[in-house]
Order: sequence, then C-alpha cells, then structure tokens
Amino acid sequence: MEVTRTNFKDSLSTVYSAIEEADFLAIDGEFSGISDGPNVSALTNGLDTPEERYMKLKKHSMDFLLFQFGLCTFTYDQAESKYVIKTFNFYIFPKPFNRTSPDTKFICQSSSIDFLASQGFDFNKVFRHGIPYLNQEEEVQLREQYEERRSQSNGSGNPSYISPNSNKGPGSIPEEHREYIGRTGVLCDDIMGFQKERYIQISKVDDEERKRRERQKQEREQVTFLLPFFLYKKRWDSSLSPLSPTQGKLVVGHNMLLDVMHTIHQFYCVLPEYLLYCFLRLLDTKLMATTQPFKELINITSLAELQKQLKESPFKSPKVVTAEGFPSYDTAQEQLHEAGYDAFITGLCFISMANYLGTAFYTVCMKRYNATLTSRVFARLFLMRIIDIPYLNISGPDLQPKRDHVLYVTFPKEWKTSDLYQLFSAFGNIQVSWIDDTSAFVSLSQTDQVQIAMNTSRYAESYRIQTYAEYVQGRQQVRESQGHSTQSWDEDGWVKPHYTSPSTVGAGPTGYSYGHNRYTPFTL
Amino acid sequence: MEVTRTNFKDSLSTVYSAIEEADFLAIDGEFSGISDGPNVSALTNGLDTPEERYMKLKKHSMDFLLFQFGLCTFTYDQAESKYVIKTFNFYIFPKPFNRTSPDTKFICQSSSIDFLASQGFDFNKVFRHGIPYLNQEEEVQLREQYEERRSQSNGSGNPSYISPNSNKGPGSIPEEHREYIGRTGVLCDDIMGFQKERYIQISKVDDEERKRRERQKQEREQVTFLLPFFLYKKRWDSSLSPLSPTQGKLVVGHNMLLDVMHTIHQFYCVLPEYLLYCFLRLLDTKLMATTQPFKELINITSLAELQKQLKESPFKSPKVVTAEGFPSYDTAQEQLHEAGYDAFITGLCFISMANYLGTAFYTVCMKRYNATLTSRVFARLFLMRIIDIPYLNISGPDLQPKRDHVLYVTFPKEWKTSDLYQLFSAFGNIQVSWIDDTSAFVSLSQTDQVQIAMNTSRYAESYRIQTYAEYVQGRQQVRESQGHSTQSWDEDGWVKPHYTSPSTVGAGPTGYSYGHNRYTPFTL
Repeated sequence: MEVTRTNFKDSLSTVYSAIEEADFLAIDGEFSGISDGPNVSALTNGLDTPEERYMKLKKHSMDFLLFQFGLCTFTYDQAESKYVIKTFNFYIFPKPFNRTSPDTKFICQSSSIDFLASQGFDFNKVFRHGIPYLNQEEEVQLREQYEERRSQSNGSGNPSYISPNSNKGPGSIPEEHREYIGRTGVLCDDIMGFQKERYIQISKVDDEERKRRERQKQEREQVTFLLPFFLYKKRWDSSLSPLSPTQGKLVVGHNMLLDVMHTIHQFYCVLPEYLLYCFLRLLDTKLMATTQPFKELINITSLAELQKQLKESPFKSPKVVTAEGFPSYDTAQEQLHEAGYDAFITGLCFISMANYLGTAFYTVCMKRYNATLTSRVFARLFLMRIIDIPYLNISGPDLQPKRDHVLYVTFPKEWKTSDLYQLFSAFGNIQVSWIDDTSAFVSLSQTDQVQIAMNTSRYAESYRIQTYAEYVQGRQQVRESQGHSTQSWDEDGWVKPHYTSPSTVGAGPTGYSYGHNRYTPFTL
Repeated sequence: MEVTRTNFKDSLSTVYSAIEEADFLAIDGEFSGISDGPNVSALTNGLDTPEERYMKLKKHSMDFLLFQFGLCTFTYDQAESKYVIKTFNFYIFPKPFNRTSPDTKFICQSSSIDFLASQGFDFNKVFRHGIPYLNQEEEVQLREQYEERRSQSNGSGNPSYISPNSNKGPGSIPEEHREYIGRTGVLCDDIMGFQKERYIQISKVDDEERKRRERQKQEREQVTFLLPFFLYKKRWDSSLSPLSPTQGKLVVGHNMLLDVMHTIHQFYCVLPEYLLYCFLRLLDTKLMATTQPFKELINITSLAELQKQLKESPFKSPKVVTAEGFPSYDTAQEQLHEAGYDAFITGLCFISMANYLGTAFYTVCMKRYNATLTSRVFARLFLMRIIDIPYLNISGPDLQPKRDHVLYVTFPKEWKTSDLYQLFSAFGNIQVSWIDDTSAFVSLSQTDQVQIAMNTSRYAESYRIQTYAEYVQGRQQVRESQGHSTQSWDEDGWVKPHYTSPSTVGAGPTGYSYGHNRYTPFTL
C-alpha cells in the first residue's frame, strides 16, 4: 500500500491496526545517498571499532534524505500455517509548510540516485506527494509559534512592532494552515512505553550504570519501544490518539544500522554520541546470515542472494499470503529496492532462518521483551566490512577483539599500497586497511613478527610504526584531553560511551576473543 | 524539443544548426535549490556590493544542481516579419560512468524542489535520462586515466602492483565504456573564439590592465564568446567536430546571474574570485525592465508578470512561429518554470522591449560584437534586492554609490529590528538591512543626521556605530591582512579584483552617483 501525503491521514488507522495485530515487523529505507565523505574505503576501514564506524556514519551519512520507508507486517495464521502480510511504502519529503517553517536541505549522491533510477524508483512521487515531517525539536518550535500567534490573535498577547525587513520576527501560523499541520503526520513527540508512561532512554553505559538502570527499569515494568518512530506520534489536532508503539514486537531489517540511524535522525532528534540502549527487539538478518550455523550454508548475504539461497534445501520458504485489500508482490518478479518489497523479503528471510533454528528460537523471537535474550540475538546490528567485529551491540559493551597482530603505520602521502607491501615484504602476507592519505593499519599474518617489525622501524625516518595497543592508547589520550574520556550525561540526557582501555581487550561479557566468537552460533 | 542522454548525440547537429542560424538566443536554468545559507535575507543584504553578492552566491549556491537547461533560438524571417523559434530542454544529471569517475553530490532545497514539483516538473526524467557531464578538470583526468589504461593494455606501460584493498590505485576505463564517454556530451574543453583560435579570458581587472588586454585582444581580432558552455566542446571520439560557439550572438536571460554562474561552475571550472571579463553579449531582461524607460511602464518584473504587461499598449507582442518539427508552446497556457518555456518567454520580452526602443537599438543588439555598446547595455546582470546598485557589471568596474547616509551598527545578539527602530527613533524613518545576528546597516533618511547619530553613540556600551566609509575601510584592512588587497594573478590565471578604496566613491567611469544613474535610461 502506498502512503503519501494525499492519503496519509486516512491510512493511519490501517497502519496502526496492521502493527497491532502483527507478530513481527520488517522495515527498510531508501536514501538519497550513502556517504558524503571522500570515498567508501575511508568510510569503512576494516579495523574500525563499532564506535568509530558509528561516528563516521553519523558525520557522513545523515545529510541524505530517507525518502521511502518500507514496512511489512507479518501475522501468523495458526489454523492455516501461513503468514498474512501487509506492506506499506511511505513516501517522505520535507515539504516546508510555510515561509517560517524549516526549509530542509538534503544531499543527493549521484551514484545512489542513478542506481534507484535504474530500478524504476519514482522520484516524482517522493517530491510531489511525499509525507512531510518534523523532528521533535522542530515540532516544539512550530507549536510554540502557533500558540504565540493564537494568543496574539486572541488579543491576549502584546505584539511588538515587526519590521517587514526583519529576519528575526516571530513566525506565524495562520488559521488556514491548521489543517495542513494536522496532515503533517510524520512527527514524533510522544514515545510511549508499555505502561503508556512517557519514557525515553537511549544511551550507552558502562556495566555498573547499566545494572542500576536495569533494576530501575524492572521496577517500572517498563519496556522501551521503537522503530519506526514516525508511526507513533501524538497528533497535533488530537483527532487520532497517540498509539503505544510496536509494544516490544520484533522489528527485522537487513543490514539495518543506517535505517535505524536515519529514522532517529530524521523523525526524532539529533543522534546521540553513541548508540543506543533501548532498541531491544531489533534483529538484523544480514548479521544472522553471516553467523553460524548460517555462515556455512549461505555464500552471499546481499538481500536478493540471501532470498534465493533460502528457497533451497535445507531451508524452506514460508507460506505467505497478502492481506485482502493490499497489493501483492510476486517474488518471481523482483522489485528489489522498493522499500516495502525489501522489507517483505527481509521478513521472509527471517522466517526461513528462524524456522531452521527450530520452534524454541522462533517462539522466543515472537515473545514481547525477554531481557535474557537481548544480549545474544537481538540488538546487534551488522557492521559492513569490519574484519573482526561482526556487529554493533546496542544492548551492551561492544566486542573488543585482540588486535595484537595489527600495526599502525604513518608515512608520506606519496606512498601507495605497493610501498607498504614492499616495506613489510619480509613478514609474509599482510593486509592493508587505509585510514587516510598518510596512515594505515597493517595486519601481519603472525603475531610474533610484530616485535621484529617494530625493531626494524626504530631508526626509520620516513615512516613510523606503532602497535595497535599504542595507537589506541594515544587516541584515548587525545580524547581525554578533549574531555571525552569519562562517562557523563550530556545536555540531551544521552550518556556518552565509557571508553574501555586496551587492557580489558578480550574481557568482554560474552567471553569474546579474536577468531573465536565471531563464529558463535546464532542460537539461544 | 527534449534532449536527454538517450537522444543527446543525435540531437547535437540540430542544436548546432539552430544556434548557427539564430539571430539571438534566450536561456534559462532550473536548479535543485537557491541557497544553503541560513536564510535569504542573509544572502541578499540590501547594501551588498556586487562583489559581496557574487561571493555569497558562489559560497552558498553552487552546490545545487542545474538540472534543466533551456535554450530558445530566435531567427527573424524578414519576408514575413516574424520570428521562427526552436526550443530545447536539456535534462542534466551527473550520472557516474564507472566506479572511478566522480560521484557528484549535490544539495536539494526542499522549498525549491517543492515549488518545481507543484509546477509538474519531471524529476524522473532528470534522474533517469539526464545528460551526464564533466567539467574541464574532470575531463582531463578521465582522459589521462583512459590514456594510461590504453598504454598499459598495449603493453607499453609498466603496470605496478595494485592491491585490491588499495583506494589509491589508478582508475581504469575499459574499452566497452568508450561509447559511453562518447555520449558524455556535456563536456567542455574547447572554447573557441571567432578566429577558431583557442583562447579564454575570464577575469576582472583594473583599468590599466584592462586597457592592455583590450589592445592585445584587438590585435588578435579576437572575440570571446560564450554561453552555454556545454554546447561547445570537443568530442571525445571526434565524430562531431568542435563547433565555434555562439559567435558573438546576443544571449538573453531573465535575472540571469545564477544561470551564468551555474553554467560555468557545473560545465566548465571552479568559479573565479570575481566575474568575468568576457561575456560580452549577455542581456538581462529583468535589468532592462527595471531601468528607464521601462521602469515607469512596468510594475512587476517577474517573468510571468513582465510578459503579461508587454502584451499591452504601448508594447506590442512580436509575431512568433515554432519551427517545423519542434513542439510549440501555447502562451495562453502557461508552462512557466520549464526552462525551455522560460527561455522562450524571456526572448519574447526582450523583443517587445527592444522594439519599443526602436530599430536602432534592436539593430545594434543583433550585431555581432560591438565594443562601444558593451559597457552600457550588455554584460550587466541584474542584482536582486540591492537598494542602490541595480546590476553587476562584468565588463568593467562596478557602480559605487554614495552611502553617506548609511551606518554600520553592531549590537548584542538579543536585539531585534524593533530595538534598532527604538535606538534611532529620533532620526525619522530608517531602513534596516540585517547582516548577521549582531550587525546591520541602518540607512537614515537624511545624511546630515549621520554625525548626530555618531555623536550620541560615543559613550554607548551595548552597541557601536560606524559610518559606512569606516566600515569599508575596516573591511579592506582585514582583506589586506589576508593578502587579498592588491591585484594579483592566482594559480588559475584569474585576476583577483582590485579593491577600490572608499575615497573613489562616486567616481565610476559612467559618472554614476547615488540616486541618479540608477535611472539612466536603457538606450544606446
């Protein structure tokens, strides 16, 4: 079902009831671009930490527009052993609603636009009929302007002289725009918990703080909520009451980190310094497919290839029917890169893999909120192109693999990869991960050669080698000097991440150590 | 006629012959946005100098995409006293042609996109079928990569080891892409003069340098040329020979400064520090309509309104027919904001106004290159919302009106326009032109009150007042300390503008002084 600003208001109750009746949800987003940084290899260094990757995406990817949001709801029909699905494609565009409202600028990346164009993506629908939205702060401002205007027009205010040349005059929201504001559906100011109590907690904390909060949370019998933000907002005109959110239901996405980040950024608020301690029921099918037991069974984990492989033995395709009144997809005719279709396929892939793992796994997935599970299966988002850290953990500390075999090398900007190969030619196979023009990580195949490499570089003038541990320590000192080191609350109530020193490497709560836990099976 | 990348190559000869046979050309561009600065009033301060305005546009407007370029050629049929027109709409999009070619990012401004969407603009056509382009530098790089690749594949090169992880490896242009490059039509590397001699000169110079160059130019019998750049490029595959450009023909646009800047920026090169000493045959119909004798006859100079008023007495609409094989416009059914249609209307407006001025004027306009004319009528581009400088002069020094009645005021950022009105309440009517949060120009109605205002401010602590002359002097000192002051050649061969000190105010070459020359009639 296509949802544009033309039918948004009329569609909301359909969307809400689809979510309420669903067993789980699948989502996907289409963006106007991926990276405004110099190039992809700079954005995705193979030895990024999850935090570094997050910071890079925050810096280089948030000025693009999430202009199509796909939602597919899956409801299991026990009697007929089939899933009933409802698919929604939300077209989204920040149409300014008057002269004083925000005039959003967004970046388009030619390669992304060209790719979507080649898939038949309908840009006219986005720009002509996209649903407008505001983030929380913009909505508050608009509401204040509106109230100010209303009190002035009631004669209760005391309007000051406004020069026509002033660019500082208060904004005005005339009465005739109220209907418009009513239709400005994609707002988000009211994120409701299970107990309909207002509560928001998005942060990353150290262990002690985490435990304290978990106790607090249990006391409240409080579960926090979810994606997609923009479906859960209190309506300006109150003609639609605020919905409680997906109520702890599982939300599935494929390689969903950017989808999550964009949804928060665009519809809710400025992204916190680090993700996030609340998205407890997310499941990333790309992570799932790259983890045991699937890792051995599935070669390529792009969404299209994953779907193909999950049609074959030992997997089984689930039986799926489209709910009445919804347009159905033909999986034989691929419509990939329409967000709703991708969400649909993602849900199918999840079901096939979950069924492979057995009833117990599937049952737990369908349960609302289970704390013991969250740290294992959910709330871990796939990280592309990182050698030894498969996921970003949004429910606890990140993995800290040993990187004893990694060297941090700085050199003149004229150097190419071949110069590094030459420099380390005595040490067998190496792997080079460029950081910028004058530095790179070099991974040696054998850790015991690190000291030899360090010794040989002692008198070098044109380049410099540090161990990974020295590099991390140096970076931490820089961070501390910038006031980033210790955990603290910032203005928004986000918690800045506690930076763990290199001495705790390998001591993560899941017993992670390099080369092992990457293959921890994806089971309960 | 619509020109996309599908029919670009086949259309070129049609475009070229339309230009060659034309008496004059009209152009217009549609952009993905206007300003990425904070707001329009900051972008267009009423007391900007032309140079300041140019610098602001260069800084805040060039990251948008010129995605539709309209060209309308007008050829007079003497026998039937009518114009034969050919209209072209070029759809433009920087589709990357392989992984190593530039992946252009461009900004979209929601209000601009929304406006074009409401006019039925076809974004799908832009993004799916837009003509790709490169600027001069990008084309050179691509050509070098291509040559390198070719010499390597011929075995004559000495390919070095390329790591698959390297982000520094040389790019490659496989043979199968040559056809694509052939179709990458919107390139520009060969700007040809009248004498088919390569020559480019875009700069702004002081009087002495200007005279030297004029002599040099006359010696060469050299005329430089022109917009639109992207029609005049040497073809990669040489299957189409380079054309000489519009050959000194008049190019008409309505409020065309941004069109000119975007065309240079997008298809040719980084914009120079200041415009430009070569666009000798441009005519801005908005400037024309706001100058005497039209100023008294025409109230509103937006393109649509101008056209309406020029249909009525004392003006006459020209007789116009569409050339065979070209789709015709119905001027009763407005299709404003399609670039080709806007170019067409612009041409109509020009003819009506030129005819009103009489045969002599029109005749001179149609002549190729007439130096005596350029400083009066041509090469002056309309400046929006500047109180006392109607145009940017690209063929000589800009106007420097007296601003003796203007004060430069700095104050706390809490101040609003009403605070300024209050501060200057003793001085009658004032006009406030905001610069930023803490400064503004305040124009008094009577110059003799400036000294009084200065005196009263002497002991003020919260605000500070300077005369306009003091302000200019201070700014010049800042510029000099930054090495901007004296004329010098920069790396690109552009000449930086010579900054004229305030003592020469009012001494411009046309005898301009405040309040007078603004009304200099638009005649020969």
